Amino acid sequence: MTRDHVSRREYDEWLNEAASLARALRYPITPEMVNDSAGIIFGDDQYEAFTNGLWSREPYELMVIFESLNEAAVDGLPAAGAAHAEYSGLCDKLMIVHPGKFCPPHFHQRKTESYEVVLGEMEVFYSPTPVAVGDEEVLSFSPMPAGEPWPEGVALAAGREDSYAELTSYARLRAGDPKFVMHRKHLHAFRCPADSPVPLVVREVSTYSHEPTEHAHDKPAPLPSWSGLHDNAFVSPAANSGRLTTVIR
Amino acid sequence: MTRDHVSRREYDEWLNEAASLARALRYPITPEMVNDSAGIIFGDDQYEAFTNGLWSREPYELMVIFESLNEAAVDGLPAAGAAHAEYSGLCDKLMIVHPGKFCPPHFHQRKTESYEVVLGEMEVFYSPTPVAVGDEEVLSFSPMPAGEPWPEGVALAAGREDSYAELTSYARLRAGDPKFVMHRKHLHAFRCPADSPVPLVVREVSTYSHEPTEHAHDKPAPLPSWSGLHDNAFVSPAANSGRLTTVIR
Amino acid sequence: MTRDHVSRREYDEWLNEAASLARALRYPITPEMVNDSAGIIFGDDQYEAFTNGLWSREPYELMVIFESLNEAAVDGLPAAGAAHAEYSGLCDKLMIVHPGKFCPPHFHQRKTESYEVVLGEMEVFYSPTPVAVGDEEVLSFSPMPAGEPWPEGVALAAGREDSYAELTSYARLRAGDPKFVMHRKHLHAFRCPADSPVPLVVREVSTYSHEPTEHAHDKPAPLPSWSGLHDNAFVSPAANSGRLTTVIR
Amino acid sequence: MTRDHVSRREYDEWLNEAASLARALRYPITPEMVNDSAGIIFGDDQYEAFTNGLWSREPYELMVIFESLNEAAVDGLPAAGAAHAEYSGLCDKLMIVHPGKFCPPHFHQRKTESYEVVLGEMEVFYSPTPVAVGDEEVLSFSPMPAGEPWPEGVALAAGREDSYAELTSYARLRAGDPKFVMHRKHLHAFRCPADSPVPLVVREVSTYSHEPTEHAHDKPAPLPSWSGLHDNAFVSPAANSGRLTTVIR
Repeated sequence: MTRDHVSRREYDEWLNEAASLARALRYPITPEMVNDSAGIIFGDDQYEAFTNGLWSREPYELMVIFESLNEAAVDGLPAAGAAHAEYSGLCDKLMIVHPGKFCPPHFHQRKTESYEVVLGEMEVFYSPTPVAVGDEEVLSFSPMPAGEPWPEGVALAAGREDSYAELTSYARLRAGDPKFVMHRKHLHAFRCPADSPVPLVVREVSTYSHEPTEHAHDKPAPLPSWSGLHDNAFVSPAANSGRLTTVIR
Repeated sequence: MTRDHVSRREYDEWLNEAASLARALRYPITPEMVNDSAGIIFGDDQYEAFTNGLWSREPYELMVIFESLNEAAVDGLPAAGAAHAEYSGLCDKLMIVHPGKFCPPHFHQRKTESYEVVLGEMEVFYSPTPVAVGDEEVLSFSPMPAGEPWPEGVALAAGREDSYAELTSYARLRAGDPKFVMHRKHLHAFRCPADSPVPLVVREVSTYSHEPTEHAHDKPAPLPSWSGLHDNAFVSPAANSGRLTTVIR
Repeated sequence: MTRDHVSRREYDEWLNEAASLARALRYPITPEMVNDSAGIIFGDDQYEAFTNGLWSREPYELMVIFESLNEAAVDGLPAAGAAHAEYSGLCDKLMIVHPGKFCPPHFHQRKTESYEVVLGEMEVFYSPTPVAVGDEEVLSFSPMPAGEPWPEGVALAAGREDSYAELTSYARLRAGDPKFVMHRKHLHAFRCPADSPVPLVVREVSTYSHEPTEHAHDKPAPLPSWSGLHDNAFVSPAANSGRLTTVIR
Repeated sequence: MTRDHVSRREYDEWLNEAASLARALRYPITPEMVNDSAGIIFGDDQYEAFTNGLWSREPYELMVIFESLNEAAVDGLPAAGAAHAEYSGLCDKLMIVHPGKFCPPHFHQRKTESYEVVLGEMEVFYSPTPVAVGDEEVLSFSPMPAGEPWPEGVALAAGREDSYAELTSYARLRAGDPKFVMHRKHLHAFRCPADSPVPLVVREVSTYSHEPTEHAHDKPAPLPSWSGLHDNAFVSPAANSGRLTTVIR
């Protein structure tokens, strides 16, 4: 492995191009949204993606997230609802993934998501059955669809293949499609097709994102119990660390 | 009053033009989203808006809502959280308001909203203090901002003036601005400026919309307690009825 | 025939909706471009289109043209080139056609055009061979393609069927397609498919438009010989008159 | 000077990001338009721009041009008009310039242009008086406007300062502005403001571009006299060479 970091120039080019694309697509980007937590490299071994660059079409796990809203929505909530408020709230993100690149397998215990493709096409890989968290009893109303089997020829990031084993369902989403809901507790990943002429651009509307990123570390917690809460559980331990900090130098 | 209905031709032109605008702005419109509950006329007296039409710039209370998502987000929720799940969930709407027209004063006991202007400019009128619901104790984390005083010359719909009395705060939102959050339990209304060259187009990302519209009347309730729940409380009683059915003939 | 005019309300709604769609699609609309020559009804009998309205999907010949540029490009031209300068120049228009409606058969002796679909799909009907103008010898470099035969079921405006007889070639254009060139002297017409969910929106980049519209009647001519020049030759005599004035009352 | 070329990776990243931005803005990009003549580096000394990269905001002369149309428009022209047909025709390009970068001073003897800003803002520098070509007599109808004086602080590319001396007029163009016409024979240059959050994206509609680029070298000439015609006259001799070939390795 020859790379353990991304250079400041590489990082800034990545983010500036992504933010320009987001603005062209009318996403409400403010300067503060373009920061050192917006470009995400999922683990030390994924910096290698920058050896040949974002347009090499090689499989690596890295993406950009511009977050325009992460609202706890606790104001006005009956105090008795505080215990489960961490399953609620509102988050709006634009996610930008280059051809061949992935958002790696993970699930959220609390967060339910929805996807709206804005540019390009989105390949979603997921588990149709939820992860059991302890012996917790959970509600069920509208389960995940079975999806399709994987198509041929999806190249996965080297060393990460096993982390996709349980994500047996597949869906391909396009601009104009109905919103696709990913219920909480379902393992999921996605990528931009390797032969795409454009980066995949997806708007994610979800419940609150509990993520102790560097950028957010000094923000007060809406409720005391939310402090330090990290709701992203990546299958690959290496990916977990990557969400929190980025080595730029 | 000379009008107590909208003609099928008027209604369909209104909806088809609005849906075309939504598609031009890349909102994910499916055919089923363009239905007889999407065009909303807030009370019998507001059909009068069609006498001179949508471009007369006269003040009336009517708008279009295209809803691409209304997800209860109960799947995977701990069963113990069911009691307050109605304060959660995910809704994504595109709202289209013609020049001079209003979404009238109302509040939601449960729903927290956010606004993103896509085209035109949005004038928001709201109460900076929440409505008390019974003697319920509620949480507070990030209260509504004080806003600005109203500008001069905002023409209100005839006979509805009193319903705006408590909405003393004002904000003017533009495309590219940060998301504007309207907490649950706050009275609010908004309009498209009367001199706008375009209809106002706003994306609203919010928690679940509890609305027993005609279009949704045969959909199963995510939880038994949600059945028939109506979370829109309009100040003007006439506006309340308008949200549920539209007289098209 | 019950209609010999369009009402001011109908006309303004048509133009305001079209201009809003154009702005949503980022076309550079200035207020002066939205005028009483922008909505075109091709002949007295076509006002009937407004009996059931723009969304009836019935075949009529009417459209909107927003012209952002009509530049003679005579400045800096060698004086010796003045004689044929009327075949040159630059025009940029956005054309908006409702479902089922047509731009009727016509040709330009001087104007060469190109089409770029922005929204919806464009059905082009044309003659693959040029009209001979007198015994004029003309250049040929890259002739029009043969095109396809017409599809089944294209409903033409009542009484106008014969005017399409020589337009035997067909092409269907979509957003993202290469520019489609319509050489001068070729009969052509086009429509928005009757079942389209959106109006057809097309950008036309062409050489100068010689059109003595009401809106342009007091503009000075770039060259004396251009004064009063009318380069639109419609097959149906009734359509010819329609391009120049609109009966709004 | 440390750089005399652009690497294949740098070039492809530049072009792929630019083409993605163009597609997001709905410009009709076909794969063939993304080629090794689309990225233009105006002279050997301007490769230095890649040392710190496209987002360094340093002044260099380089840009991307995606050409969707270059139509001679000779078909159907009276044979007697052939002599001046090279002043006519239709070209449609999308030009993408990174912050601080320039299209350098040049004029076209034959080509008249117009600009439409799609994203960002365009700073145009030009001479309000035309260049005399020999003792040719030329027409004049609507001369260039005087423009404004230059603002403070426009950083020019090192060693190229003198080439801007005659471009004393300035205009700043924004999305939605009326089309700005640059008549043939006028010296002009433009840049993207150095502090812009996005690359400048401009649509240029013009008469035919006579450019013997590498990409076009095997295309037949519309008229024999056009063969090898090069209508771009750059003030800086070094810039001239740059338009024709790009050193990628």
